[in-house]
Amino acid sequence: MAITVVGSVAYDTIETPSGKRDRCLGGAATHFALAASFFTQVRVIAVVGEDFGPRQEAIFLNRKIDIFGIERAAGKSFFWEGSYVDDLNEAKTRITDLNVFATFSPKIPDAYRDSKFLFLANIDPVLQKRVREQMPDVKLVAGDTMNYWIKDHRAALLEVLKGLDCLLINDTEAKMLAGNSNLVLAARAVMEMGPRFLVIKHGEYGATLFHSKMRKGQGAELRVPAMPLESVVDPTGAGDSFAGGFFGYLALHAETNELTPDAFRRAMFYGSVMGSFAVERFGTERIANLTREEIDDRFKIFRELTHLD
Amino acid sequence: MAITVVGSVAYDTIETPSGKRDRCLGGAATHFALAASFFTQVRVIAVVGEDFGPRQEAIFLNRKIDIFGIERAAGKSFFWEGSYVDDLNEAKTRITDLNVFATFSPKIPDAYRDSKFLFLANIDPVLQKRVREQMPDVKLVAGDTMNYWIKDHRAALLEVLKGLDCLLINDTEAKMLAGNSNLVLAARAVMEMGPRFLVIKHGEYGATLFHSKMRKGQGAELRVPAMPLESVVDPTGAGDSFAGGFFGYLALHAETNELTPDAFRRAMFYGSVMGSFAVERFGTERIANLTREEIDDRFKIFRELTHLD
Repeated sequence: MAITVVGSVAYDTIETPSGKRDRCLGGAATHFALAASFFTQVRVIAVVGEDFGPRQEAIFLNRKIDIFGIERAAGKSFFWEGSYVDDLNEAKTRITDLNVFATFSPKIPDAYRDSKFLFLANIDPVLQKRVREQMPDVKLVAGDTMNYWIKDHRAALLEVLKGLDCLLINDTEAKMLAGNSNLVLAARAVMEMGPRFLVIKHGEYGATLFHSKMRKGQGAELRVPAMPLESVVDPTGAGDSFAGGFFGYLALHAETNELTPDAFRRAMFYGSVMGSFAVERFGTERIANLTREEIDDRFKIFRELTHLD
Repeated sequence: MAITVVGSVAYDTIETPSGKRDRCLGGAATHFALAASFFTQVRVIAVVGEDFGPRQEAIFLNRKIDIFGIERAAGKSFFWEGSYVDDLNEAKTRITDLNVFATFSPKIPDAYRDSKFLFLANIDPVLQKRVREQMPDVKLVAGDTMNYWIKDHRAALLEVLKGLDCLLINDTEAKMLAGNSNLVLAARAVMEMGPRFLVIKHGEYGATLFHSKMRKGQGAELRVPAMPLESVVDPTGAGDSFAGGFFGYLALHAETNELTPDAFRRAMFYGSVMGSFAVERFGTERIANLTREEIDDRFKIFRELTHLD
């Protein structure tokens, strides 16, 4: 079933211990869409500037991603520059230029309106809510957010959470949102704000799935590891790629099956698989050139890495 | 098969967000022995002072742990005082009084010499090596260490590592020992120092098993999560309890089976199970009163928490 994603399409300048890339294609919607495109049809809503050209378009089109909803505006695309030189687990932001994103007002193309899956990537919750309201008939809505919105735009964010089936955030964000430093209690508090399912990402240690109907004494539904990698080149977009694999698998699964908690469990593995590819090269380089066979092979490795038999 | 463990038996004064306990029984050998005692016969080599009395003895004897090798010396037992009030994941040490431990020279009782499993808990590597040399015929030797020995007693520690089949340490220790900030590369470097198997513990995120004959492209053998717990009362001894469950399971398994990598994989789950109990109460309170049935129940929960079907 088709997914519509709204979020940023951007240029990133990234420095890591492995080197530096200037103005490579990035943005949450980009990483999400590329990862999800291995599972289902993906449609993107975003805004770019006059600097977005055929080379960037090709990265989407090679993966058969629908970019009709990427609006072209006068000016420059969203730009981010960050460094992981001191700590591979946390980017130090050097520059954030919103550019055309500063006045973005998402418009949903008519051709996108039959999408059954909606992903609200990390943008202003006011925009997330506006998109959500324009697509009342979707089957499943998931979303992401970040510390900035949690701290300074809480009221707007709480409105978005009410309309989500599933939220994907990291440990720090979950604890901040809930005001509780215990992960299980924080998860429970966040789910009371709306989402039935909650994925808390632990960076290099994987991610945990929580469900509002929690099994007795279990604390969480499932914990999936991240791949122990010999070389992490660039962590940018790992979380969005996780989300793309996770949500993409659910959309594929829903074509022929019910969305049971078991489907969400399996989706966690695909999320972790896609996140593990994302960090192996700069920007979109790895996932844009991936094959479905590589995904299946790594899924098997994740299974071996976690399963007793 | 019987395990001999050498390490500290101590009194701990612990403060956590859940409260404070004065002078409760602690020490690495204590936590290890209690956890391992659910799987096999455990024999302890340690030294205590005149303050070690029948109440402390009873905690061992109730679990049928052999304490003939716990030497009584004039003076006070090893004492540690620490706080987790600021950060449940890291103790802030307030007091360390070695007391009788300062002049400890481990002696191996004759009745211990047929032990087929030897665990060298975190003590001076010079003592670890002395014990190892006195038990040349053991089937499997595992050990632990800490940043202090890695930084300031490296030569002695490297001697110990040569004689280990398996080392259990945490992320920071592994990276420090290897001088490499990538976990997979650090693991490989540490295994080149001696141990065939390496368990790297990630605190609240679980632990990863590495094997020197690593499967292609897999990075590690197995990653097991920690239990997401609603209430973590006291993390003291969690790592030693993990080691006790892990090594205890291997000793039990070896009575009737080969020690294949699969046995080590399963042992990881028992390690994580025992670690998860340890933190639920202060000091030894939870594990000293545990039942085998609770262990089996939690093993099932760990399975569900990690396995797709």
